[in-house]
Amino acid sequence: MFEKRENAPRQEPQKHTALSELGEFGLIDRLTRPVKLYHPETIKGIGDDAAVIDAGDHVILLSTDLLVEGIHFDLIYMPLKHLGYKAAVVNISDIAAMNGIPMQMTVSIAVSSRFPAEALDELYSGILLACEQYKVDLVGGDTSSSPKGLVISISITGTAQREEVVYRNGARPGDLLCVTGDLGSAYMGLLVLEREKKVFQVNPAMQPELTGYDYQIGRQLKPEARTDLRGLLQAAGIKATSMIDISDGLASEILHICKQSQVGCKLFEEKIPIDEQTRELALEYNIIPSVTALSGGEDYEILFTIGQTDYEKIKGIPGITIIGHMTAASTGKMMITPDGKEVELTAQGWDGMRK
Amino acid sequence: MFEKRENAPRQEPQKHTALSELGEFGLIDRLTRPVKLYHPETIKGIGDDAAVIDAGDHVILLSTDLLVEGIHFDLIYMPLKHLGYKAAVVNISDIAAMNGIPMQMTVSIAVSSRFPAEALDELYSGILLACEQYKVDLVGGDTSSSPKGLVISISITGTAQREEVVYRNGARPGDLLCVTGDLGSAYMGLLVLEREKKVFQVNPAMQPELTGYDYQIGRQLKPEARTDLRGLLQAAGIKATSMIDISDGLASEILHICKQSQVGCKLFEEKIPIDEQTRELALEYNIIPSVTALSGGEDYEILFTIGQTDYEKIKGIPGITIIGHMTAASTGKMMITPDGKEVELTAQGWDGMRK
Repeated sequence: MFEKRENAPRQEPQKHTALSELGEFGLIDRLTRPVKLYHPETIKGIGDDAAVIDAGDHVILLSTDLLVEGIHFDLIYMPLKHLGYKAAVVNISDIAAMNGIPMQMTVSIAVSSRFPAEALDELYSGILLACEQYKVDLVGGDTSSSPKGLVISISITGTAQREEVVYRNGARPGDLLCVTGDLGSAYMGLLVLEREKKVFQVNPAMQPELTGYDYQIGRQLKPEARTDLRGLLQAAGIKATSMIDISDGLASEILHICKQSQVGCKLFEEKIPIDEQTRELALEYNIIPSVTALSGGEDYEILFTIGQTDYEKIKGIPGITIIGHMTAASTGKMMITPDGKEVELTAQGWDGMRK
Repeated sequence: MFEKRENAPRQEPQKHTALSELGEFGLIDRLTRPVKLYHPETIKGIGDDAAVIDAGDHVILLSTDLLVEGIHFDLIYMPLKHLGYKAAVVNISDIAAMNGIPMQMTVSIAVSSRFPAEALDELYSGILLACEQYKVDLVGGDTSSSPKGLVISISITGTAQREEVVYRNGARPGDLLCVTGDLGSAYMGLLVLEREKKVFQVNPAMQPELTGYDYQIGRQLKPEARTDLRGLLQAAGIKATSMIDISDGLASEILHICKQSQVGCKLFEEKIPIDEQTRELALEYNIIPSVTALSGGEDYEILFTIGQTDYEKIKGIPGITIIGHMTAASTGKMMITPDGKEVELTAQGWDGMRK
């Protein structure tokens, strides 16, 4: 009401830009454009998986993620313990994607009174299980009531030697584009869960048909962070030139690396690692299997680039796939389809697929 | 639904403990009791204004705060720019309360589609104003849509030399209990704003009656963090023995220090610094003036203890008031009223007063 009075003399109509017009990345760009940095200790601010802070002989990594009920998770099929585990893992993955070691975490929750304390015990048991699994210290947080639903905000620190940190912006033309594990299964797990939710809503007596999809559902409900990659690369004597974790989908993450490194890419569609059952399941859903990887997201695998000279070294590491290479920016961001056509790589991302 | 199936064989009825039964501190205790720490670098975890992380020749402080629309703020009288400023200051205050220097901040927001981008510009302009004022680098964050309302989650880092850090648990019997600035005005500012909101709701044509309460309203809408205390104490050659910021009310904060330091206290009610106009305003509202300080909260002043031998040094610093002293735990946590009676200090806190 006081705003009204203060603004009374203003004549021109106020501009209203809907958030949906901007999209998440557009909004972040807009809000953070005026940001100024004051401390030389801030080595890297906004724009990577984590901020990088000078701590003398090493660096501290800092990242944060927000999970909102009804947007990021659905408690109808997401058990609270899994949700807690996943909320922690999503953050741990950001530290892994800087080639760092996860260290400390703060957990804040806003929760409506419909949740009993026992529900939060479950949530925390999942968070603490992830903390034990990945050796992360829960060191603080905040709790609040919420007028509606559950919101989880986690911040995480990590550590690394300054020269160990791998950013999104170090890829060079000719570098090999690599990815850990396989992609698209988390997305297919989500589709299976959503199908069974619909069946359940129509007929609550019906038991969900989940057997046979353990792998996909596990990837969706209990993802893991690839903190092991750091050791694998170290043992092989490889220093990655760029790195990012796959939360939004392979296409979107490749484009982040291309943009920040100012390079182009050639991605070979048939090289994208996809689990055989996920491939069949996708076809059953009338989805081109590679699309589950390109646009599905939530796999929390790591996408990274290495110098061509490291080809022999990377070949020896099981569970890592070379899916393409980087090119000069002028040649564009291209995907080569199995029949040899070049198509431009576009990021539909998560939002695009689910609507 | 899958929970249901998994739990089917369980016979005993599940226990449901309402969150309101536990209260905020009870809930935090319950959820964090099983926390284990894995890293020797974690000097201090949960239980102070910030966590303390060993960074070699210095320490990194880490804290986080969550602000939820309808719980912590009301956009009817809280302009978004002020809200952004306050959200940042609340976090900066946590670093000040460890005797540290605020350094980096991450800002996450969940926001419903009713907010246009211009509203978020306003919110961020307030956050960035606080960042400029207190020289804090905004280094990351997350944005998300929200099914309802606005949630702001900020995490902050700070730095200090290891021996400079002041915890809540260092107070000793005989130490002097001191506070910066004056207390209770932020709470009276809130009452004025809420009164005018009610008037406005009854008759929207009515202009709010706010003139004359600038100080109180300013304390509520645009609080400042006492980052200056660090320099004042340093210049005077004083090392505080314990420290906490006043977010929940003086009584609650004193009890935190007593509990963690395992000491008692004698607080002299008439020594509590209260602005003269705030005192009059409280009486007008039929509130005992000291109650606005004891239970009001949101002043973001700093409560701290110092050794008795520093009495002469502290006397010379303007704007700091000695309000009592610490005692042996066995003598209890007592307040001495102006007529000389000893009453036990209890924390009604924020929730208690507003309901």
